[in-house]
Amino acid sequence: MLHSADTLSGKIEEAIRSIPFDMKPATLYEPIRYSLSVGGKRIRPLLVLLATDMFGKEVKVSMKPAIGIEIFHNFTLLHDDLMDNSDLRRGMPTVHRKWGANTAILSGDAMLIESYKHVSSVPSAILPEILALFSKTAMEVCQGQQLDMDFEKRTDVTEAEYLEMIALKTAVLLACSLKTGALLAGASPQDADLLYNFGMNIGLAFQLKDDLLDVYGDAKTFGKNIGGDIVNNKKTYLLIRALKSSGGKQHTELLKWISTEKFDKNEKIESVKNIYNDLNLKSISENLIEKYYLAALDCLSLINLADKRKKELVSLSENLMYRDK
Amino acid sequence: MLHSADTLSGKIEEAIRSIPFDMKPATLYEPIRYSLSVGGKRIRPLLVLLATDMFGKEVKVSMKPAIGIEIFHNFTLLHDDLMDNSDLRRGMPTVHRKWGANTAILSGDAMLIESYKHVSSVPSAILPEILALFSKTAMEVCQGQQLDMDFEKRTDVTEAEYLEMIALKTAVLLACSLKTGALLAGASPQDADLLYNFGMNIGLAFQLKDDLLDVYGDAKTFGKNIGGDIVNNKKTYLLIRALKSSGGKQHTELLKWISTEKFDKNEKIESVKNIYNDLNLKSISENLIEKYYLAALDCLSLINLADKRKKELVSLSENLMYRDK
Repeated sequence: MLHSADTLSGKIEEAIRSIPFDMKPATLYEPIRYSLSVGGKRIRPLLVLLATDMFGKEVKVSMKPAIGIEIFHNFTLLHDDLMDNSDLRRGMPTVHRKWGANTAILSGDAMLIESYKHVSSVPSAILPEILALFSKTAMEVCQGQQLDMDFEKRTDVTEAEYLEMIALKTAVLLACSLKTGALLAGASPQDADLLYNFGMNIGLAFQLKDDLLDVYGDAKTFGKNIGGDIVNNKKTYLLIRALKSSGGKQHTELLKWISTEKFDKNEKIESVKNIYNDLNLKSISENLIEKYYLAALDCLSLINLADKRKKELVSLSENLMYRDK
Repeated sequence: MLHSADTLSGKIEEAIRSIPFDMKPATLYEPIRYSLSVGGKRIRPLLVLLATDMFGKEVKVSMKPAIGIEIFHNFTLLHDDLMDNSDLRRGMPTVHRKWGANTAILSGDAMLIESYKHVSSVPSAILPEILALFSKTAMEVCQGQQLDMDFEKRTDVTEAEYLEMIALKTAVLLACSLKTGALLAGASPQDADLLYNFGMNIGLAFQLKDDLLDVYGDAKTFGKNIGGDIVNNKKTYLLIRALKSSGGKQHTELLKWISTEKFDKNEKIESVKNIYNDLNLKSISENLIEKYYLAALDCLSLINLADKRKKELVSLSENLMYRDK
């Protein structure tokens, strides 16, 4: 039976709420519970379940690994927030702000182990394949995070390097989620790989959309302050393109904003955004997002299933592409 | 064929040297290579191989998971050093001193993932059991580390709580190493569990011996400064016993040394050691070590193998018990 994304999301929330993090010591597990309860869109476990569902298998076979991937994702957020020294996550104090750096390190480690425990809860015949995919992906996410940190110290990051970084940091986990769900449903290797490639393309589009919303989103609906990436000189697609394609006075002005340590936030956002506008970066970026989105749909169309079975995944992808937050 | 511990240690060093940590980015993998190259006794992988060897199986079946457990152990040291803010590990600068806290966090995460990749490299029929044991153990080690940190803020830690903490932080990984080696050799569940219990007892004795050496070891052979635990008010078996069994003036003096922030290091070490001497804690501690050691040998004697097959493990254990460093 095909389930709606909403129905599956409800099941996911229920499953997360019922993880028995009541082990001792509480000082280790309380931050884990907190970190998982803070919410988020739960996109990754939803992709696992949608993939299993579309290939006609009961979603309960995939629930444990789906939750495992969500725990892994929240582990990366917990450690990333510590490394970035962020105070807030989804409007709530981050774990290291609430309990200190040491608790954030160790609780994160325990979450990574817990994610493996959940992902390993699959039939033993398929365990080696699921586990190898998960470990490969987890390592790639670390590589992506390291590249992201390395890029902070550079101003010569190329577009190709940036796309590789977001592929590793963001896209591979979405792709892994979909392939995991497909494999657990007994999909053919070809179909599982097509779904993986669908996820890679959606993931790239998703992150590029995030970069775009940070500059062109509506402050009211976006949920975080507009222009944060500009303020922090974050090497987004927009900034990298701007550094490459701006010339003369414009280039000098851009470099000045990047290197100036004291500035008025709004003035910086406004000025850099003007440069982006002059360079037409909004539509260049939207075209690239569209390109990846269409490539994703191409992968999906090659999967050997009736269109109605792909419907929920298409509409979720549309929502992600055309979201304003 | 039975191998000597020395032969197996040589194979372990060779295997560690040949791990191809040449992936990108170098900023992620260089600290991992460094952390593994700094050395140490490699006791855990040696226990894996000795267990496989004693049950008559080729040790090469266990090499990958043995290295995985060593990578896991070094991951815990890397993150523990960061949490404890330690400058040196085995006489070399710690990873966070050399590359900063963020690199230490992320490289440690990558090591934990790498340890899973290695531990998972076993025949698929036995993968679920090996993996479940490893995940359970890894989580226990985190619990032990959290308890250890929690104890820093308390002066009412009981002997039982302390023994539980070192069981989790140290003993379970030695026990897991032995059981992993036994399972991979096809040992019966009973024999594998006996070897696990052998490891738990050896692990407890091993940590108690460590506590003892910190106070009563010979500075020349011990390799680190004597009295470090006393200086840092580390809640060792000796301090916990002393806090419990000292009375009157002695108790007051002990509490004074614990709470005083400015002191002469040697004076503090000398004074606290005198209290330990008065309370006869050296021989009380040695008796407890002996008790666990004999319990370990009892477990070993029940294993259904000829004595000559247990010889290397017995002599390694003796070395660990009667070591002076």
